[in-house]
Amino acid sequence: MSITDPSIHTDSTSALASRFLGVRGLTDLLASRLSPEDQVPQSMTESSPAKWHRAHVTWFFEEFILRPLPSYAVYDESYRYLFNSYYEAVGARHPRPDRGLVTRPGAAEVGGYREYVDSAVVEAIESGALDDAALDLIELGCHHEQQHQELLLMDIKHLFSTHAFGPAYVDRPADDAHAPEPLTWRSVSGGVTEIGAPAPGADPAGFSYDNEGPRHRVYLEDFEIAERAVTNADWLEFIADGGYHRHELWLSDGWAHLGQTAWEAPGYWESGDDGWTTFTLSGRRPVVADEPVLHVSFFEADAFARWAGARLPTEFEWEAAAVTAGDARGQLLDPDRCHPGRAGAAMIGDVWEWTASAYLPYPGFVPANGAVGEYNGKFMNDQHVLRGASAVTVPGHERATYRNFFPAASRWAFSGLRLAR
Amino acid sequence: MSITDPSIHTDSTSALASRFLGVRGLTDLLASRLSPEDQVPQSMTESSPAKWHRAHVTWFFEEFILRPLPSYAVYDESYRYLFNSYYEAVGARHPRPDRGLVTRPGAAEVGGYREYVDSAVVEAIESGALDDAALDLIELGCHHEQQHQELLLMDIKHLFSTHAFGPAYVDRPADDAHAPEPLTWRSVSGGVTEIGAPAPGADPAGFSYDNEGPRHRVYLEDFEIAERAVTNADWLEFIADGGYHRHELWLSDGWAHLGQTAWEAPGYWESGDDGWTTFTLSGRRPVVADEPVLHVSFFEADAFARWAGARLPTEFEWEAAAVTAGDARGQLLDPDRCHPGRAGAAMIGDVWEWTASAYLPYPGFVPANGAVGEYNGKFMNDQHVLRGASAVTVPGHERATYRNFFPAASRWAFSGLRLAR
Amino acid sequence: MSITDPSIHTDSTSALASRFLGVRGLTDLLASRLSPEDQVPQSMTESSPAKWHRAHVTWFFEEFILRPLPSYAVYDESYRYLFNSYYEAVGARHPRPDRGLVTRPGAAEVGGYREYVDSAVVEAIESGALDDAALDLIELGCHHEQQHQELLLMDIKHLFSTHAFGPAYVDRPADDAHAPEPLTWRSVSGGVTEIGAPAPGADPAGFSYDNEGPRHRVYLEDFEIAERAVTNADWLEFIADGGYHRHELWLSDGWAHLGQTAWEAPGYWESGDDGWTTFTLSGRRPVVADEPVLHVSFFEADAFARWAGARLPTEFEWEAAAVTAGDARGQLLDPDRCHPGRAGAAMIGDVWEWTASAYLPYPGFVPANGAVGEYNGKFMNDQHVLRGASAVTVPGHERATYRNFFPAASRWAFSGLRLAR
Amino acid sequence: MSITDPSIHTDSTSALASRFLGVRGLTDLLASRLSPEDQVPQSMTESSPAKWHRAHVTWFFEEFILRPLPSYAVYDESYRYLFNSYYEAVGARHPRPDRGLVTRPGAAEVGGYREYVDSAVVEAIESGALDDAALDLIELGCHHEQQHQELLLMDIKHLFSTHAFGPAYVDRPADDAHAPEPLTWRSVSGGVTEIGAPAPGADPAGFSYDNEGPRHRVYLEDFEIAERAVTNADWLEFIADGGYHRHELWLSDGWAHLGQTAWEAPGYWESGDDGWTTFTLSGRRPVVADEPVLHVSFFEADAFARWAGARLPTEFEWEAAAVTAGDARGQLLDPDRCHPGRAGAAMIGDVWEWTASAYLPYPGFVPANGAVGEYNGKFMNDQHVLRGASAVTVPGHERATYRNFFPAASRWAFSGLRLAR
Repeated sequence: MSITDPSIHTDSTSALASRFLGVRGLTDLLASRLSPEDQVPQSMTESSPAKWHRAHVTWFFEEFILRPLPSYAVYDESYRYLFNSYYEAVGARHPRPDRGLVTRPGAAEVGGYREYVDSAVVEAIESGALDDAALDLIELGCHHEQQHQELLLMDIKHLFSTHAFGPAYVDRPADDAHAPEPLTWRSVSGGVTEIGAPAPGADPAGFSYDNEGPRHRVYLEDFEIAERAVTNADWLEFIADGGYHRHELWLSDGWAHLGQTAWEAPGYWESGDDGWTTFTLSGRRPVVADEPVLHVSFFEADAFARWAGARLPTEFEWEAAAVTAGDARGQLLDPDRCHPGRAGAAMIGDVWEWTASAYLPYPGFVPANGAVGEYNGKFMNDQHVLRGASAVTVPGHERATYRNFFPAASRWAFSGLRLAR
Repeated sequence: MSITDPSIHTDSTSALASRFLGVRGLTDLLASRLSPEDQVPQSMTESSPAKWHRAHVTWFFEEFILRPLPSYAVYDESYRYLFNSYYEAVGARHPRPDRGLVTRPGAAEVGGYREYVDSAVVEAIESGALDDAALDLIELGCHHEQQHQELLLMDIKHLFSTHAFGPAYVDRPADDAHAPEPLTWRSVSGGVTEIGAPAPGADPAGFSYDNEGPRHRVYLEDFEIAERAVTNADWLEFIADGGYHRHELWLSDGWAHLGQTAWEAPGYWESGDDGWTTFTLSGRRPVVADEPVLHVSFFEADAFARWAGARLPTEFEWEAAAVTAGDARGQLLDPDRCHPGRAGAAMIGDVWEWTASAYLPYPGFVPANGAVGEYNGKFMNDQHVLRGASAVTVPGHERATYRNFFPAASRWAFSGLRLAR
Repeated sequence: MSITDPSIHTDSTSALASRFLGVRGLTDLLASRLSPEDQVPQSMTESSPAKWHRAHVTWFFEEFILRPLPSYAVYDESYRYLFNSYYEAVGARHPRPDRGLVTRPGAAEVGGYREYVDSAVVEAIESGALDDAALDLIELGCHHEQQHQELLLMDIKHLFSTHAFGPAYVDRPADDAHAPEPLTWRSVSGGVTEIGAPAPGADPAGFSYDNEGPRHRVYLEDFEIAERAVTNADWLEFIADGGYHRHELWLSDGWAHLGQTAWEAPGYWESGDDGWTTFTLSGRRPVVADEPVLHVSFFEADAFARWAGARLPTEFEWEAAAVTAGDARGQLLDPDRCHPGRAGAAMIGDVWEWTASAYLPYPGFVPANGAVGEYNGKFMNDQHVLRGASAVTVPGHERATYRNFFPAASRWAFSGLRLAR
Repeated sequence: MSITDPSIHTDSTSALASRFLGVRGLTDLLASRLSPEDQVPQSMTESSPAKWHRAHVTWFFEEFILRPLPSYAVYDESYRYLFNSYYEAVGARHPRPDRGLVTRPGAAEVGGYREYVDSAVVEAIESGALDDAALDLIELGCHHEQQHQELLLMDIKHLFSTHAFGPAYVDRPADDAHAPEPLTWRSVSGGVTEIGAPAPGADPAGFSYDNEGPRHRVYLEDFEIAERAVTNADWLEFIADGGYHRHELWLSDGWAHLGQTAWEAPGYWESGDDGWTTFTLSGRRPVVADEPVLHVSFFEADAFARWAGARLPTEFEWEAAAVTAGDARGQLLDPDRCHPGRAGAAMIGDVWEWTASAYLPYPGFVPANGAVGEYNGKFMNDQHVLRGASAVTVPGHERATYRNFFPAASRWAFSGLRLAR
């Protein structure tokens, strides 16, 4: 299956409607493999039910595009309460840890809600009634929904992994095993370097979130970056060398976290008579040596780098390296795969890569106006930046300036690492 | 709607098969009002998903009746892990707090499981292959399923109550308001009194759980018992008199619990512009003055009794009073109502009544042999006995010797109280 | 050392003054072995600093005896806040979990407070200004202080046990090891039996707490009771037989508690190269076979009894057996020992014995008037009764009707068990 | 009182011995105002008992300087376990949350330990037996002890604040109230800027921690910095303007933290009939308008800056501004004051100032070799950098490159803020 995502901001409303419907259709396709029951639970506080994702992204369009239109009839006023994620400016909302208790509306009625809003948005686009700000919000809503497509797959993977007889989201054949590529390094020159996305006006074809700008200067020393991500084979060496039991490799918080969790391997890994297996969206599978390691926390990534005599790149180094790396892409979302391929040269794709950088505002950062200004900025505390994209990132949603972020102990994202020195 | 429950232990296998199918059918009827999504969540650790209840009671028959039969093919071996509740003797089981994460099997497949086991049990009964012990276990399994029918309704009520726009499980018209009956007292004579259910052999028509025996002697002083349960009108007086804010009325643990929960009223009550409402299985409704108060904890029942210048009866007093009260029944389960009626003279029905007694073994108590011996005895710690039956107890499942039990702070059962002095 | 405790309620004020000073002096003696630093920490929420015990028992006399006297000048008004334990009627108080943070007044100033109150109480007694109710409160205050003498030693034992190089409270030579007595049984006749302490007026020489009455009738079946407490040798057999790993021996709450705590032996026991040791008030010592087992929870006592094919006695059986056992006493407090002797025939002394009974009010129980009515009754929830007395109970404070109580998981008291069947 | 701290790294061993004894003597002076009881409790997990601070800094010299010397006899081997803070390389240690339970050694014996180690260190210095690495470790140990002097005062302030009748650590007269200085701004030029401390060899007179280097280049835009810290008067405006109740001012984590803590004002503030008071080391005092605000968390500092239409400086901006600000100092530790003065022009002194920067390694950072390499680097996760120094920082311990760090919610340090834009 191939997903085409033009992602082109256009003056042509029909192209925008088409783009909008393409994004919406992919969500429907991803959810179509889930039963109504699969769409209900919230398997941890950080995740959300599939049914909730489907409704929340729909509410985003309803709340910010349709509700301001005088002619629009809100589908169900209770949804504003049920499907607001965290927008304080919009008012009270259902408590996040209890999203898994909302059984009504059911999966089918959420489908009805989606159709209703789809029609209304397309009609609004085609009517010419939307101003440029509203059209920009539709574009933002499309990107927002793409983010939730990745979250939906992360969350379903987590949910299914809690089942003792872990179901498969997608059937696919076993991967062939290969020896991993040897690790080689590429030199990147430092100096004063421009980082971040240009202002929206500067590049009409490009979309970026507010947190990717303003574009600004940083001073970098020369550095080297690894030409592939760290692989499962590398990680097995780390385990064999006692990596999880050597305090000198770990940050203090990480070592304390190990004490609480007794982690001995990446997320979803289990050790059995036939060696290590990992839970995938196709069920439990043997760990494949030349695939990039997945579901490691920042703590583990940082400890691995120290063990390897290297370090994580800063997000600025990472971006500078990615800009000079060309347009190659690793595995992005293929709904028939939902899993990385072999670790290769591309910096974008396969796995999100932890950086050494905390998630902080760029100099001069100003959040967007209104409720959507809560999208990114207010989370700039105690999170760590990941760069790149993963095998569950929708093609067209990835770019070199993209800043993903998670807390240091988090590992349900498709997260790995790339070394620098 | 009327539920007939012969509940008669019989030598006639066809009568047992009929009884079995009657019990099973009521579960199906109760579940038929729930969507697949409604059947998934576990809204607190103590409750269980409706889908889990339906599968667990089925597993009970499969595990203890069918699995020992050489000719029986287990439906799905994974269900033993997924649907064992707490039988340590049966082996590992799915962690209780995570029952809401098991989306597969879905609601429909649980229906298939139920049909498969139904056929196999009926066939086994009719084949004459079951010995008396197995036939007794079928009877136990029927009572077990009746208990879970009440739990299913308690749990759905709790789940729906967490929804900001609380759905109705059953539609029914508003209740008429009446002035409550005045409180009158009945004298009961003490002395050495026999308490508990006779041994199974002694009364072939009677079923009882192991914890209701052995029948034994206790010494009672003369006492008086109230001729109706405490009503909502009574409770409103307690609230108005500062009952929730006067430490001298409360046990120390209860007072501490108030400090943590900030309770100001029974469970599901909310105060609004039009006075107090409560959540019912027909949605949120005004509190009705002459109905028995529902969803109070032992702590609240005990404090109320102290405030009223009375006390809770012991479970022995309660049983002695019930035996002399005749066969009148308050409201038992009517699936079209699922809610008590006016507080009346009957001691059994409407609401479970907290007693002053801790849940402890009777003298000479011996649990049943085998895994089913885990049914009751192992919970005899830090729980309090409730007697009677409630508006969600299945007719035929109630009796004067029945010992229900919950922790002191628990209030999701249909629990109220009756005063003694 | 010998402690004489006449404990005789008397019309002679000089005898009461002498009794009062005797009790007060023992507290001073017990505290004299502690440094100021030892008297500060609270090593768990349930325990209290030694300095706090010394001040609290003093405050009890000041609050209930002296404060009502017009001529009395309160020592320091802030002490009412700092040293009230749980009397809601007296007003706000320092939060219990933070007692270890109150460094001021220091140990020496608490000594000054004690002397001040001692003089004032003796003066009040001798002045003849106190009415009978006040004189009774002095007697209650003496018993209250004796209870706190035991608590002080329990709490110091717990505190010292947390120190990696556990200090000794008292030096004493090692105990000789003997083979334990074989277990023999004594028959006790049942029937309607009177239980509890007589009303205060009925026996002028006897003191009892309100929770020991009213004296009332219970019906008992005939039973047998073991002629010695369970010993460490018995317990080692239980451990060796997998007692801590066999779910069928345990109450469900107990089994869950084992899962959380990973208990493998009684409190303070540790397994080393030379076998089991236990922490005593004389430091860490080898476990002595013929001493009664100490520091077991109700859960463990109950599981042990099931393993032994016996059961715990109810508190009524225990009292009936004790009344017929005569006046023999096991080890009571000897400040130079603070540890039980060999398990012998006496039912009172050496160790508190868990019973099968929940701590509930006797029929007709009415708490004392005023703030001291909070002494016992409000704790009648989710606690279990222990009977007897221990090697840290002050001689004169023990009696057959005494009801001690702790939660089921608690084991910092000197708690053991005696079997019945 | 004046504290002279030459802080000069010197070839002269007598100067080093003198410096060492000066630092040690100040700890003794600070502790001399505390009773033995005051030195025991640990009032929260993050703090430590005064007695522990005194012993731990002593152990640091014993462990890293004296223990390697063949002639040295360890004072007490148990102290290595009791007084190691977090050095994994040194072995097992007493659990941090339980430091308040270690009553032995007592305060006086810790004094004996200090004297023993003092003599041994001075003797070692004067003997000429120490190599340069060891002499550097003595210098490090002196700075380490100075850090703990500040911690000791922070911790005593916290401990005393939990006392309902908060004692005074030091008596001092009330401060005069003045109108605060108006807020003015100073421009600082950007460009490629050198940040951090020079390598140890480069400046023989200067000491710095490993985390202050390597000195490296960063690119800064031009910016403005406030010419005084934010004052209590400023903060009262923020409160009055609803600052603690306006979600749009807060980071998401901060807003959630407000929900849990219900903070309405800085740490130690209380609102009473006569307005706001704050707890100081001289007891509870009225809030003084022109003093810098103290005991605010990063969350509060960040919200305040947003409310003020400004922002926090990055630590790089702060350092660049401090370097150009000259050598003026605000209030540093005066043991007779222990409290800031009026907010003035100096950037170093009075209060630590939160920056916008996460605590991360500088490019090329390498921790020191051996156990002391655990001093700083392993804490580089989810902490925020503060710059400057406070009124409880020892003179001579402050410098422009110093990086202090705390978690975002922490506010028991003497922490305030300075605006940038």
